[in-house]
Amino acid sequence: MAPHPFQTLGVEETRIAREVILSSHPDAVVDFREIYLQEPEKALMKQYLDLEHASTPGQSPASKRPPRLAKCQYDIIGSDKIPEYHESVVDIESKKRVKHEVIGKEFHASLTLWEFQILLEACKKSEMFQKAMAEFKFPDGFELVVEPWPYGGLDLQSENRRYFQGLCFAQDTRNGNADSNFYAYPLPIIPILDAHKKEIVRIDRLATGGKGDSLTGQTHSEKVLDHCQSGEYVPELVDLRKDLKPIDITQPEGPSFKVTDESLVEWQKWRFRLSFNPREGAVLHDVHYDGRSIMYRLSFSEMTVPYGDPRPPFHRKQAFDFGDGGAGNCANNLSLGCDCLGVIKYFDGVVIDSDGQPREHPNVICLHEQDNGIGWKHTNWRTGRAVVTRNRELVVQFIITLANYEYVFAYIFRQNGDLTVEVRATGIVSVVNIDPGKTSEYGNVVSGGVLAQNHQHLFCIRADPAIDGHNNTVVYEESHSMPIDKDTNPQGNFYQIRKTPVTHSAGLDAAPQHNRVFKITNPNKKNPLSGNPVAYKFMPPPTQKLLAARGSIQSNRALFTDHHVWITKYQEGELYAAGRFTLQSQNEKGGVTDMVKRNDSVEDEDIVVWNVFGLTHNPRVEDWPVMPIDIFHVNFRPADFFDRNPAIDVPSNKNNSSVLVEKDCCSSDQKL
Amino acid sequence: MAPHPFQTLGVEETRIAREVILSSHPDAVVDFREIYLQEPEKALMKQYLDLEHASTPGQSPASKRPPRLAKCQYDIIGSDKIPEYHESVVDIESKKRVKHEVIGKEFHASLTLWEFQILLEACKKSEMFQKAMAEFKFPDGFELVVEPWPYGGLDLQSENRRYFQGLCFAQDTRNGNADSNFYAYPLPIIPILDAHKKEIVRIDRLATGGKGDSLTGQTHSEKVLDHCQSGEYVPELVDLRKDLKPIDITQPEGPSFKVTDESLVEWQKWRFRLSFNPREGAVLHDVHYDGRSIMYRLSFSEMTVPYGDPRPPFHRKQAFDFGDGGAGNCANNLSLGCDCLGVIKYFDGVVIDSDGQPREHPNVICLHEQDNGIGWKHTNWRTGRAVVTRNRELVVQFIITLANYEYVFAYIFRQNGDLTVEVRATGIVSVVNIDPGKTSEYGNVVSGGVLAQNHQHLFCIRADPAIDGHNNTVVYEESHSMPIDKDTNPQGNFYQIRKTPVTHSAGLDAAPQHNRVFKITNPNKKNPLSGNPVAYKFMPPPTQKLLAARGSIQSNRALFTDHHVWITKYQEGELYAAGRFTLQSQNEKGGVTDMVKRNDSVEDEDIVVWNVFGLTHNPRVEDWPVMPIDIFHVNFRPADFFDRNPAIDVPSNKNNSSVLVEKDCCSSDQKL
Repeated sequence: MAPHPFQTLGVEETRIAREVILSSHPDAVVDFREIYLQEPEKALMKQYLDLEHASTPGQSPASKRPPRLAKCQYDIIGSDKIPEYHESVVDIESKKRVKHEVIGKEFHASLTLWEFQILLEACKKSEMFQKAMAEFKFPDGFELVVEPWPYGGLDLQSENRRYFQGLCFAQDTRNGNADSNFYAYPLPIIPILDAHKKEIVRIDRLATGGKGDSLTGQTHSEKVLDHCQSGEYVPELVDLRKDLKPIDITQPEGPSFKVTDESLVEWQKWRFRLSFNPREGAVLHDVHYDGRSIMYRLSFSEMTVPYGDPRPPFHRKQAFDFGDGGAGNCANNLSLGCDCLGVIKYFDGVVIDSDGQPREHPNVICLHEQDNGIGWKHTNWRTGRAVVTRNRELVVQFIITLANYEYVFAYIFRQNGDLTVEVRATGIVSVVNIDPGKTSEYGNVVSGGVLAQNHQHLFCIRADPAIDGHNNTVVYEESHSMPIDKDTNPQGNFYQIRKTPVTHSAGLDAAPQHNRVFKITNPNKKNPLSGNPVAYKFMPPPTQKLLAARGSIQSNRALFTDHHVWITKYQEGELYAAGRFTLQSQNEKGGVTDMVKRNDSVEDEDIVVWNVFGLTHNPRVEDWPVMPIDIFHVNFRPADFFDRNPAIDVPSNKNNSSVLVEKDCCSSDQKL
Repeated sequence: MAPHPFQTLGVEETRIAREVILSSHPDAVVDFREIYLQEPEKALMKQYLDLEHASTPGQSPASKRPPRLAKCQYDIIGSDKIPEYHESVVDIESKKRVKHEVIGKEFHASLTLWEFQILLEACKKSEMFQKAMAEFKFPDGFELVVEPWPYGGLDLQSENRRYFQGLCFAQDTRNGNADSNFYAYPLPIIPILDAHKKEIVRIDRLATGGKGDSLTGQTHSEKVLDHCQSGEYVPELVDLRKDLKPIDITQPEGPSFKVTDESLVEWQKWRFRLSFNPREGAVLHDVHYDGRSIMYRLSFSEMTVPYGDPRPPFHRKQAFDFGDGGAGNCANNLSLGCDCLGVIKYFDGVVIDSDGQPREHPNVICLHEQDNGIGWKHTNWRTGRAVVTRNRELVVQFIITLANYEYVFAYIFRQNGDLTVEVRATGIVSVVNIDPGKTSEYGNVVSGGVLAQNHQHLFCIRADPAIDGHNNTVVYEESHSMPIDKDTNPQGNFYQIRKTPVTHSAGLDAAPQHNRVFKITNPNKKNPLSGNPVAYKFMPPPTQKLLAARGSIQSNRALFTDHHVWITKYQEGELYAAGRFTLQSQNEKGGVTDMVKRNDSVEDEDIVVWNVFGLTHNPRVEDWPVMPIDIFHVNFRPADFFDRNPAIDVPSNKNNSSVLVEKDCCSSDQKL
């Protein structure tokens, strides 16, 4: 059977695409970057999905099936050794290239992990780097670790070569543990790689001063690690607490979800397709509840992590973790009983090596159910009868590691119709060396010699809604105080709900002081009870926007952070809030700000809703050595979409595995 | 052994207090309202706790024990039958009344549930009410239900009698189910009780119109229920979903917590005392982590629920659920396997009847552990080694039912030092009748004939911090963009953290656009790593404040809603954000706004921090018939309080009860 049009490109399909590309460039050296599904055009998919939803469950319609396409990203290495970046689209069935684009030199392809290897090898070979390192006296048993990073936004407009930088640390090898935390020993030096030359071309030297010191002064001693201290987190190097008893989560009758047709997930009236790609990670498609359409596509689109330390070269410390390297590429291989509890279904992805050969990327998504406390409850105080249901959730989760840092991304489905996007930030905060006894206004000293720099995490999710159909209108609703008025508000308790439809593509902000709620409505369908258009709503988290000054490189590259909410008209291929190319970008090109400039009508149209939220992270000592999760939620909730609480039919059965605490853990008299 | 000074007053102690009161008023009729623990003066408790913490675990110090006191609230019924409200304090050991206060007529005692019975009986006896009811033609098999409510803020300054109002509904008895949802059939009539006369003295008639109709017009027909429809939620009246499989949560080795000395809870380095009282419900005392003090007391102080419908008498529809009737009084008797899963420890409270006789109020608090996903994670991408810990939580929970509505209140402790206050709002939204086919700007039509009125829920929690001691200072910190400057900010990426200590008692607001964080610091103790004062921080949820117009009765009664954060100097007995007496209040008296007016120094002083947050609830159709939970969190987090992530020592053991999904639930090929 042919794969579903939304299904992640398989190993065999990837291999076909690779061969088509190789045969399209018979005389060239091809360095592959990515091969993944080029999703079908929406116009074609709408026809296909209409047929699919009208057909017998499990029977995909053979007619109207859009062509199965692979997006191929690769460098063609010319005789001058300077790679030229190409993007092609291959039709898998016909084995033909159907689109070919040579990307201009003003853009940089996303990095690949094997480019990082080039940096490590170049450091080893670089005399310049070895000489610079020799200026430091390491304590006995310490060894250098180089951590490759994207170069960040160029501060010189004049040149646009492809660079990478290496953050340097030292690892204490005396404990013989390969996972001893080297981030606790930062070195004030950064080698710069010219990726085309494969050479270290410059050494950046970092200031290590504190308050009152200059931005560029070299104040450190040669024994730059002597005031650092260990910051271990692997269990064998930590004195663990011993009084934690296990919580076992079991599902003796199995899970309530069903996965069929490889990508189709059905659970508690929800039905959606799941795919995985190297840039966005897990993506939801064609999300329905009880046979009614809610989203055509939901994804994490982009994030940026700018640092607030003004000392050069930290103005370049700004990651775009989706555009620069790909969240999917950085996905963890998840593990049973650690990353999730209960009955777990894992999904694999596919990655390629630089020769284009595909292999499986196992367990990149996990799917499981969880109990999240009470779902709804009411007690009739006359009869004493309490009806209480649990809040069961289905979680689609993936986790990425970006050098020191991790993000746990999840889509959470609830029986009550809520669809929540969750981000948990954890991992090791990015640190630099600071001289003994100093403190800094650019960050917080979290360990001896270790300054955790102030930074922000700004995420953007992309929701392509289909609220009972593709033509939707966003209306934002506010609640406003009204003056006392003898006719309309005699006692001053009235407040007014004001509704404003968004007519043209726009960037808008959260306004919690007005209880501003964004409703994605279908203006063509009314709720039979309330008479309002059916809708899903969300309240954008009113988190701080980008702090970098307007006109700065950090700001120019991340214009998508200018507003909490963007409404754009759907246009094929517009998936990325900061544009297709973020690596080493100078300006956001083709991002939401450009999309909005079209000033499209977005009333009763096929629209896309973008939400930007985040965290200004001024580190605490408690964020060291691995920070406890910080959690963020964006909750899409039905608003007059259904004709009652969709979870009212959830059984209120008592769970018989719960028990009273045994006496011996508590004093004999258990009364307060 | 004598009970711990914070321990909830026991049945026997309550009985002694009752007898002392009765013998203090030998010739009077005494109607009791409440008897509960009068907590010891802080000055005495500080001495006691110092000794306790210095003594052998489990050995409470006998010396310095403050006297055990009972607060007694009661009416003395005079010969004119008009009750006079008294509050006395009784020393349990000496069996003496040590304080006695007669409360002025300008204040009303909190209501008791037996006052509600008076309303119901008065309705039965009232000819006026019977006559008014005869104007309606019920469908066959429908019967009247009267729901007692507090009267709300008086709109006439001239009189201050004690009133209650009855919201009227009809119940469909044809299904023979006593829990059939009568709220689906609202009647546009409200009988008013004079509580002293025990008579219905007035009938309020409700407008049932919609947009464009007058505020007072009587537009309904006599068949006022004919366009209503059933809204059942009890499982036997609902067509339940059948595909939900159980999730079992077990703790084969028992829980990780320990409860000793009746009120002392110890869990994962946390240690605190737990008590329960009729007004605030569950209260935390003397909260420590790893032997260090964090809070002296933490409680839910007050909440108000004002309605935004300007039609009389809905301007009086405004509950103060803690001050009016007592959250503790309305606490549910919690049930194993429904309200919580896992190994549960319940605590009982004590309530009295109107004759002062005490009895146990079973299972009013539950204590349990839960797993909340990943706690922290890091993968070393060089070695591939992932260390991942779970986010274990300890939950202290109580649930209250207020007529139609419920709140789930919880204190959540985490191994990482976080202490979170959680509120879940659920239950049945308050509704009134609306004429067929009409809609309203005062609410949303959620079922035939049923208008769910727009309203707000505004909560106030009271934190009496003791960050490594009682003398603390609140500093609020903001992050600000800085202009590009060649010396200090050459590339524009620097942002400045601004710290402002709160020097005098004040009301302050959330400012998420500046990432405003409130740090409760101990200015006398510095973190050895960062050099900053040790602190716990919180970011107040930037939720909408009260919408009722300034100067309105709703606003005058709830001035505590004017700011998100209040800082006051500790003063004995100041527990209630809206003041001691809220029932039928005209103005907030003795609430936080009055406390702040003292303009006390709050720098390096014993301070109290109040946080107001809430929800503007413009109902959705999906909130009917029982609304899915809305969740609110206030998270107190350590900020340079510890010298590392306190959860870094949590074991990262794999849970062996987790399993892979079985093939038969999924298609044979499990790859995406």
